[in-house]
Amino acid sequence: MGGDLGPPAVIGGVSAFLRGEDDGTQIVLVGRADAIGPLLREHGIEGHERITLVEASQVIGMEEKLSAVRQKRDASITRTIELMRDGAADAVVAVGNTVAAVAVSQLRLRLIEGVGRPGIAIPMPTLKGAKPPYEKSSTIMIDMGASTTAKVEHLVAYAVMASAYAEHVQGKSAPSVGLLNVGEEIGKGDEFLRDTFEQLQKAPVNFIGNVEGGDIYRGRCDVIVCDGLVGNAVLKASEAAAEMVVKLLKESLAKNLRRKFGAALCMPAFRELRQSIDYSEFGGALLLGANGIVIKGHGRSGARAVENAIKVARDAAVHRLTDRIREGMTALAPAGRGAHEIPGGGLVAGQVAP
Amino acid sequence: MGGDLGPPAVIGGVSAFLRGEDDGTQIVLVGRADAIGPLLREHGIEGHERITLVEASQVIGMEEKLSAVRQKRDASITRTIELMRDGAADAVVAVGNTVAAVAVSQLRLRLIEGVGRPGIAIPMPTLKGAKPPYEKSSTIMIDMGASTTAKVEHLVAYAVMASAYAEHVQGKSAPSVGLLNVGEEIGKGDEFLRDTFEQLQKAPVNFIGNVEGGDIYRGRCDVIVCDGLVGNAVLKASEAAAEMVVKLLKESLAKNLRRKFGAALCMPAFRELRQSIDYSEFGGALLLGANGIVIKGHGRSGARAVENAIKVARDAAVHRLTDRIREGMTALAPAGRGAHEIPGGGLVAGQVAP
Repeated sequence: MGGDLGPPAVIGGVSAFLRGEDDGTQIVLVGRADAIGPLLREHGIEGHERITLVEASQVIGMEEKLSAVRQKRDASITRTIELMRDGAADAVVAVGNTVAAVAVSQLRLRLIEGVGRPGIAIPMPTLKGAKPPYEKSSTIMIDMGASTTAKVEHLVAYAVMASAYAEHVQGKSAPSVGLLNVGEEIGKGDEFLRDTFEQLQKAPVNFIGNVEGGDIYRGRCDVIVCDGLVGNAVLKASEAAAEMVVKLLKESLAKNLRRKFGAALCMPAFRELRQSIDYSEFGGALLLGANGIVIKGHGRSGARAVENAIKVARDAAVHRLTDRIREGMTALAPAGRGAHEIPGGGLVAGQVAP
Repeated sequence: MGGDLGPPAVIGGVSAFLRGEDDGTQIVLVGRADAIGPLLREHGIEGHERITLVEASQVIGMEEKLSAVRQKRDASITRTIELMRDGAADAVVAVGNTVAAVAVSQLRLRLIEGVGRPGIAIPMPTLKGAKPPYEKSSTIMIDMGASTTAKVEHLVAYAVMASAYAEHVQGKSAPSVGLLNVGEEIGKGDEFLRDTFEQLQKAPVNFIGNVEGGDIYRGRCDVIVCDGLVGNAVLKASEAAAEMVVKLLKESLAKNLRRKFGAALCMPAFRELRQSIDYSEFGGALLLGANGIVIKGHGRSGARAVENAIKVARDAAVHRLTDRIREGMTALAPAGRGAHEIPGGGLVAGQVAP
């Protein structure tokens, strides 16, 4: 029900997904039938055999605060996550209020044993090589804003979780992990960053050391871990920087007839560029750390972004991402810290195998 | 003597500045005469009436650690800053090792009363408006990496110092200050950010509240304060994001003859774009907080960047930036904190006027 563009974008994405993929994925739509029904008719997918509609009477708006989560017990985001918790779905796609999605996941799904805080992971586009053809790939960056001022153990858990995604869902073998710092050299940064560096060396991940902001887009490693404030600022600033470049180019190309004519000839190239830096091509963010798969599409998600988010959710479910993360956290426990330190408690020594 | 391109870039910049500006600015060159002399001859400015050469026998290389500052007492950066401290210069321009420049400034110039840590400020390009012609300006962002995990009082001092620059050197009246956060709403972020928000409201600056990463390039305020880790990551990531956009465009434009022909017609527009996002047009970073003006050019600075850095240094000196910052810090003392709390001590109540 959420997102800046609301149900029309979501149903548009579902419709495109069903037309494009015939893999048996079942779609459960959760929300107000009076809003969803007419859209299904419009797209000609009313009564589709792969769609189930589940009524949820309330909506948490994009601007609503955390308190709305407790007040609106029949909110679509809450009902959707409960459905997954109860086994009626394998993954959740949400495009609405991020704060609500994070809070509901944490409350209703509980965090995976050993995870102190959920993290938002986003695959960032990367370009490798000095000249064309460039090698294109992605770097998973975590945390992009689920929380700020993380502790050392949170960053280590982020590394384990994002590595599980890179390895088992993206199919990268021994995915490399970098720590975002002010410089590459060992010993850079303050005590917090140096401690995190040390713990990452002991963790069951392929840690390659410190990386810098520029490495995000240069494909130096498969996973980059950082605090949510840093990740969030980097993501939004990069979007704005790319947007500024495009605006400046447009302005400059409109200055005279010769340029306008040249620009017309180059139009397909400009369209390709737009597509390769368009966030909607990347399928949104993964909310990692809770017992369940939650894909959080950008608030501005259109149909194309929703379609890609569904694919990411499907792939994560097929590769049993939550189980893979659980295994990673279990492997971390004896290495990085004593079992007795794990928050959430209830863990007995025999469970920390292998 | 420093910088990736070494003395040739520096002397090239000096030569361009002397040819372009006839304002009486005197240039003191500090370094090894055997390296500088031939370059002066090459540019036809040997024995120029506005150039003085001061010998310094040592150089701190780009990759050297902090320890080099104590070992090399006759390093060019040390000698340059000592010259300013002793009144033989009004401002320093350096393009070498940043860590060394920050350390030498702090050691030799000492910090301004009330400033706990120096900060690196960088004017970031901004674009305002939804369509062309866009309004172009800059936002001073501080700290870009002088230190990580700043305390609340450091961020408040950064705001005061950058405001002094924006007001007195850039000529902006009542420059607006934003706090970089994960969202705009009051109460966003953790305790540290909420405390900083509160202290900025009480500080003698025009605080407008929280801003997000994207606001950096959208000209929402004149000054943005953040921790050095965040600022550094944002700066490097933005550079890399813009670089990626340019590379993708190039690749796409080379795909067929039609596009290549179009691109040839658009070439002047591409050149304009490159210039407007080129860091060398922005004159480098300001190291704020010490008793003296230190402009730190990008390590990759070419002649054009050095020339612009000299202009920034000259303007800061003409407008007596250090005095203006001192006034700002004095105004802050009674508002934001007790005089007794000021690190560095030695302050008596009578000095805190007006």
